[in-house]
Amino acid sequence: MTLQAIEDFISKQKTAFIGSMDAEGFPNIKAMFAPRRIEAGGIYYFSTNKSSLRTGQYLENPKASVYFYQRGRFKYTGIMLVGTMEVLEDHDSKASIWQPGDTMYYPAGIDDPDYCVLKFTAVRGRYYQSLTKGDFTF
Amino acid sequence: MTLQAIEDFISKQKTAFIGSMDAEGFPNIKAMFAPRRIEAGGIYYFSTNKSSLRTGQYLENPKASVYFYQRGRFKYTGIMLVGTMEVLEDHDSKASIWQPGDTMYYPAGIDDPDYCVLKFTAVRGRYYQSLTKGDFTF
Repeated sequence: MTLQAIEDFISKQKTAFIGSMDAEGFPNIKAMFAPRRIEAGGIYYFSTNKSSLRTGQYLENPKASVYFYQRGRFKYTGIMLVGTMEVLEDHDSKASIWQPGDTMYYPAGIDDPDYCVLKFTAVRGRYYQSLTKGDFTF
Repeated sequence: MTLQAIEDFISKQKTAFIGSMDAEGFPNIKAMFAPRRIEAGGIYYFSTNKSSLRTGQYLENPKASVYFYQRGRFKYTGIMLVGTMEVLEDHDSKASIWQPGDTMYYPAGIDDPDYCVLKFTAVRGRYYQSLTKGDFTF
């Protein structure tokens, strides 16, 4: 897969799986809604709760992965990105990915203290597509 | 969710996402076909290549997770199991999950040196189902 094909694939996914490290050193996995915003160079923004388990894990250890997967009738594609996850709480970052429907979860709006942004910056990745695979970097 | 509901959900999934630790301390994720065999008490058997990246990671660090996820029209369910992954290479373990079609990938059959078994033993788990969540142990 070319880097362009990888980015195209990722931009169509509705679910992302995020990897984190827990306090006992176990790798954790959680499904998230697709990134709210994607920037060139492997940068992905997710919205989440400040009080969530994952947010706490990333504050302790920013090492992270983000995985995208689709299984079709004749082939499957899996793309893993490895990098770091930052927890952003400033107004501008929060405003940049805010959606009107978020008020349902965060009644105080953009500045709701439980609303925050996870910013993932990939450094490298690996893809699997049916029987082919390859590594790439950002 | 009760432990029974969790086990029923897992037994219906066609894909499992496995978490591992890479040499640089990053959590890794990869999709796998559903476990070949499930034993009571949170034990799951997968087939894989001895030469694969994940097998090498588990030999270095057995800390692992296995994640199951389904997103329906009105709800989603995500179940994470945390535990350890062993790499088994003895004949009996390999024979116990061997399927006839495997010959396509492992021409030498059950004792093909590149065919091995990943045995995951869960110690605890966490589920998310729409807006509810909970922890459980084995």
